[in-house]
Amino acid sequence: MRLKDLAEHLGLSQTTVSRALNGYPEVNEATRRRVADAADRLGYRPNASALRLATGRAGAIGLVLRGADELGPHMSEFLSGLGGAMASREIDMLVTTVATHQEELAAYRRLAASQKVDAVILHSPTIRDERAELLMQLNIPFVLHGRTEIGHPLAWLDIDNKGALERATSHLLDLGHRRIALLNGVKGRTFAEHREIGYRAALSARGIKVDPALVGNTAFTDEIAFRRAQAMLELRPRPTAFLAGSMMTALGVFRAIRQAGLQLGTDISMIAHDDVFPYLNADNMYPSMSTTRSSIRQAGVRIAELIAQVLAGKPLVDVHELWPVELVLRESSGPAPRA
Amino acid sequence: MRLKDLAEHLGLSQTTVSRALNGYPEVNEATRRRVADAADRLGYRPNASALRLATGRAGAIGLVLRGADELGPHMSEFLSGLGGAMASREIDMLVTTVATHQEELAAYRRLAASQKVDAVILHSPTIRDERAELLMQLNIPFVLHGRTEIGHPLAWLDIDNKGALERATSHLLDLGHRRIALLNGVKGRTFAEHREIGYRAALSARGIKVDPALVGNTAFTDEIAFRRAQAMLELRPRPTAFLAGSMMTALGVFRAIRQAGLQLGTDISMIAHDDVFPYLNADNMYPSMSTTRSSIRQAGVRIAELIAQVLAGKPLVDVHELWPVELVLRESSGPAPRA
Repeated sequence: MRLKDLAEHLGLSQTTVSRALNGYPEVNEATRRRVADAADRLGYRPNASALRLATGRAGAIGLVLRGADELGPHMSEFLSGLGGAMASREIDMLVTTVATHQEELAAYRRLAASQKVDAVILHSPTIRDERAELLMQLNIPFVLHGRTEIGHPLAWLDIDNKGALERATSHLLDLGHRRIALLNGVKGRTFAEHREIGYRAALSARGIKVDPALVGNTAFTDEIAFRRAQAMLELRPRPTAFLAGSMMTALGVFRAIRQAGLQLGTDISMIAHDDVFPYLNADNMYPSMSTTRSSIRQAGVRIAELIAQVLAGKPLVDVHELWPVELVLRESSGPAPRA
Repeated sequence: MRLKDLAEHLGLSQTTVSRALNGYPEVNEATRRRVADAADRLGYRPNASALRLATGRAGAIGLVLRGADELGPHMSEFLSGLGGAMASREIDMLVTTVATHQEELAAYRRLAASQKVDAVILHSPTIRDERAELLMQLNIPFVLHGRTEIGHPLAWLDIDNKGALERATSHLLDLGHRRIALLNGVKGRTFAEHREIGYRAALSARGIKVDPALVGNTAFTDEIAFRRAQAMLELRPRPTAFLAGSMMTALGVFRAIRQAGLQLGTDISMIAHDDVFPYLNADNMYPSMSTTRSSIRQAGVRIAELIAQVLAGKPLVDVHELWPVELVLRESSGPAPRA
């Protein structure tokens, strides 16, 4: 039942029915009552737009994704957790995809103007994130999945990327590895910067200089990782261990190792970051994969809760969570081969 | 700039400003002009709710997903394609997640009442899909990703699941396989029913009876597939070939084959259905995987176009696309071993 149907049923204009339902004085009391009774009897519910105007809540959380590729395995796991937690609150997710950085900023402005969402999740922020600055200006509540430094208190949930990489690198150093390659995420993203800081800290604690030829910054895909790892394995001396930024990266590195005729776990070691994809289980790989592990799905569940806290007025300085990352050792990491 | 800010700036009530902007007669001309000028000067844009009431378009497409797990790798690839195509049209995706079938129906009713979306995509329909019936009643335009039979013309895009399985099964029969296991999707979903029809047609053309012990209907996860394949490999005589419903299923089957001490491609053959995940490339597997292939991302792109056609009034009987499925032979399928 829509406003139009109700109006037709009553033989009144939509404007009159709308005014009657909203208690405008120009509609007389008899008409108002007749409209209210019919609305009640026919189960007419005002639409979201009217409801939004009445309650001040949109009942939706916004996500702006850059490029179709951002809707990849990481985002879908995150959305699984977020969506499950939102379902119990009857809150929807409004997903906007954009092609460029400028379109991304415009999409946030459009979200603010339209008031279609009550809050926004900003994911994979950069060190000084322009989008976060814009959301502050636009006065849209938001929670970061990750961290940024823009000189305001912000609500965020992040994993300890620095600690994870420091530990994984130190472990490989303990095993005698000295040429350790890092296949990291895109430069400028805070998580990738934090990972590099952890990697450098572990190396520098042993007095080992970073070899720039062993550090790659790319998107997390099997194909790109394959090509980077292949090139690194042609270096002499070649790396004896890889730190892979994601399970997809690990698949590509594994392929390059196999193609070079080397054995993972003996000739070459690898520790991958595992966001816990149900279909790419580190335990089930062959050899099983050593990982730094943190469930991105659980992060999605928790961010739904943090958003509820922010909307309920909890001070942003109190909405901070830094999750520790586990180091899980399996077969893919072992002692460095004798030179 | 919100209505509230504009009203404060003008020293008028929000009601008066709203009425002025909407040309209600009770606001005098001088006030109306003053409000319009200020709105123009200050860049006030009416919010989505008001806009929605004015244009009759929500600017969003709805998707209702059952359970967080439905937001898995298949859906995320589909959404990548859909989202990319929607971005160029400035159309958002409103994603609602629900826990149960009843909640799913309620979510569609809520979408209809709220008028938050212009159309809906119904994915993985069943043979007689109650949700499709409801969407007809609710008068929400929708496009099916898959097919259903509810006795109305509907708009749909589907792949030729029957043809794909008939071809793959026939190929394995040509290679001498007689005990061919089918790890299919959940019973009742049209795509799984169509796949079974294709499988049965190929077997029956050679006079081979279906062995129910070799047919499994489950969700497409690595773990479930592993357990089913493990159990099937303990049968005597055991299957010599597997038809895996997805690449995730293929990973689990592969693990079971390896664990049984068998060699994929020689002792046991496999053909998997490949929705073309960028991070699980059939060519890059070891041995490389024979597949029936159709890009689910491209289906997402195309459905965005079909929705535009439906909203533009194209008759539903003309919005039908059945995509052929390629059979790509690689190393995982070979002649049946001698008994």
